Amino acid sequence: MVTAKRSVTVLGATGSVGLATIDLLERNLDLFSVQAVVARSDAAGLAAVARRVGARRAVLADERAGPALKAALDGSGIEAAAGALAALDAAAVPVDWTMAAISGAAGLAPTIAAVRRGGAVALATKECLVCAGEAFMAEVARAGATLLPVDSEHNALLQALGGQSVDDVERMTLTASGGPFRQWDAARIAAATPEDALRHPTWTMGAKITIDSATLMNKGLELIEAHHLFGVDGDRLDVVVHPQSAIHGLVTFRDGAVTAGLAAPDMRVPIAHTLGWPDRLTTPAARLDLAKLGAMTFEAPDLTRFPGLKLCMQALAAGGAAPAVLNAANEVAVAAFLARAIGFGDIPRLVEGALEDAPRHGLTRAPDSVEAAIALDASARALTARRLPRDAVRAH
Amino acid sequence: MVTAKRSVTVLGATGSVGLATIDLLERNLDLFSVQAVVARSDAAGLAAVARRVGARRAVLADERAGPALKAALDGSGIEAAAGALAALDAAAVPVDWTMAAISGAAGLAPTIAAVRRGGAVALATKECLVCAGEAFMAEVARAGATLLPVDSEHNALLQALGGQSVDDVERMTLTASGGPFRQWDAARIAAATPEDALRHPTWTMGAKITIDSATLMNKGLELIEAHHLFGVDGDRLDVVVHPQSAIHGLVTFRDGAVTAGLAAPDMRVPIAHTLGWPDRLTTPAARLDLAKLGAMTFEAPDLTRFPGLKLCMQALAAGGAAPAVLNAANEVAVAAFLARAIGFGDIPRLVEGALEDAPRHGLTRAPDSVEAAIALDASARALTARRLPRDAVRAH
Repeated sequence: MVTAKRSVTVLGATGSVGLATIDLLERNLDLFSVQAVVARSDAAGLAAVARRVGARRAVLADERAGPALKAALDGSGIEAAAGALAALDAAAVPVDWTMAAISGAAGLAPTIAAVRRGGAVALATKECLVCAGEAFMAEVARAGATLLPVDSEHNALLQALGGQSVDDVERMTLTASGGPFRQWDAARIAAATPEDALRHPTWTMGAKITIDSATLMNKGLELIEAHHLFGVDGDRLDVVVHPQSAIHGLVTFRDGAVTAGLAAPDMRVPIAHTLGWPDRLTTPAARLDLAKLGAMTFEAPDLTRFPGLKLCMQALAAGGAAPAVLNAANEVAVAAFLARAIGFGDIPRLVEGALEDAPRHGLTRAPDSVEAAIALDASARALTARRLPRDAVRAH
Repeated sequence: MVTAKRSVTVLGATGSVGLATIDLLERNLDLFSVQAVVARSDAAGLAAVARRVGARRAVLADERAGPALKAALDGSGIEAAAGALAALDAAAVPVDWTMAAISGAAGLAPTIAAVRRGGAVALATKECLVCAGEAFMAEVARAGATLLPVDSEHNALLQALGGQSVDDVERMTLTASGGPFRQWDAARIAAATPEDALRHPTWTMGAKITIDSATLMNKGLELIEAHHLFGVDGDRLDVVVHPQSAIHGLVTFRDGAVTAGLAAPDMRVPIAHTLGWPDRLTTPAARLDLAKLGAMTFEAPDLTRFPGLKLCMQALAAGGAAPAVLNAANEVAVAAFLARAIGFGDIPRLVEGALEDAPRHGLTRAPDSVEAAIALDASARALTARRLPRDAVRAH
């Protein structure tokens, strides 16, 4: 049970993770005081959110949206601010808990700012770990911050680990829904359209992550994240396909015992875990009903039909710049696929090509700072774009 | 990882749980020094076990087997002793860890002796909790002992709970294989023979527990144990039928997150958990392979076809003497069924009758000591026997 009142800041308060966080905070205003809510440019959305939770401050990263935010908060007593520096300032104010849910490269700097002032950071941004894992985890260690993953798989692993030593962990397993092409043959997958890929069986998500779920690249990126989060090497990490997505992650200990994290598909469950940590909040999320679910099935991932996952495993094993190059190349490839400039089967081909090209362009070392990670990301994107057909470069 | 060398005693060293414990100790003699091994009457078996682990002392509860034990240990340097008092003395010697695996009422006194000297007690004996739960847990609290359940379901719940407060637990769920009659209709179940019931789908166990698994009474008794072990009331405990027995127990927290304990069916896994606790030992037990398993299925237990489980739930809700009366009546009924004196459908009928009769015979209060529990058990057996057909009484 959570008892002492905690101060919190929500970075990315108008996105899906941010809104789920706001929902939980609104239900528990006796337990939390909201220091700041931060978003990119949605003035009306952010103002509404700030009013719901009685935030002290609302900040938009986009300076141009400042006047609209001020107007929307008129009479509320909530401070309004705008601009990249104001967003960084808001992230750096000491609080007990920060939700870091600004997606993409834009999330890196505010998340680092939050980490640097210590406390608990609920991490929903993948980029920090995939593109700058070593540098980011070094910042976490330096600041003595507590990193609490929000992603359902990593949150499940955190809960399954239950504070035990990773030295006693034999294997960490992430489950994958298998995506919409789980039962398709290789030829059909290669010819898949964006519409085919956007029909995700379990979760409703953004287009980029839905394509990543179809290539299984998403799961591979999660392996890279798990490596950094838990300090477990690639040879102790694996993936099992589990279309019902009831189990999100499993930890096998050296004695053969396995603990697993499960939940119904509601982001409020892992968010509440990080928000209540080390205690628990009550949530109205749907409960997992095993008898109603009836069956869970499991199969090994097919690395031939889904070479994206294999590329991630190889990049994780290679280390250095490889994971960041892979991530950048994948972003470029997915954008080109969504723009219909390349086929579905070209996504892993482009990524593989970028990984092959990277060493010749001097992209070998893991970035030792967030700035270096941003530079590496840009170089890897440029390098991948060269392999795109001309019209795709324009579309991108 | 276990580092400091620990002293241990194994009560019930020649039974299946005891032998699995000896196997683990023998593989880890650098980590454990065995103070005593205790068994009932198997001199050759106990001597062999004592030699395998280099025990300081071997003790048989049956005094008549003393000379055979002495002879079998000749020249080994291992002390031999026999008799009920010698067994109690062995249990009372202070050690870091005790395996309490003497089954039946005979296990009560030595287990209490082990609890009273504090330390960690791995509990494989059901009787302590089902027949004398309140009194037993009071002894545990008084001695500051740490109780570590060995039963796969309760051990899974302990691991899934992961040291978190039961105040944050919304529900604890035990899985049941469903037994051999899971898919049989009520009429066919009522007419089942001992041979039908002894074909258990997953585990190889003794006859009594196999019959209990067929009636689901076993699962009901486990609910009662879980209530005492974790301090969770019956309305927060439930059962789900899961024929593959991969998941053994699940804990649902107030935020909707669920953690589950899983393992391949090898008793060495939960035993190793208690033996290594709070660290982990390495075991050669088979690992759970979800992709190979393929599917897990779940269904709600049918309380109409399996009234034994319903009776346990009612006894747990009623409290007082009811759980102990139910357990005693069930033992009598199962023995009569195995002796072909009553039908399978008569088992729950006899138990229900005993529960109805008990208050009229003054059997209402929970026993406040182990001695009172033994007396209550005897009274409830006598009361149940009266309802048996004459020839069954003789058989029993």
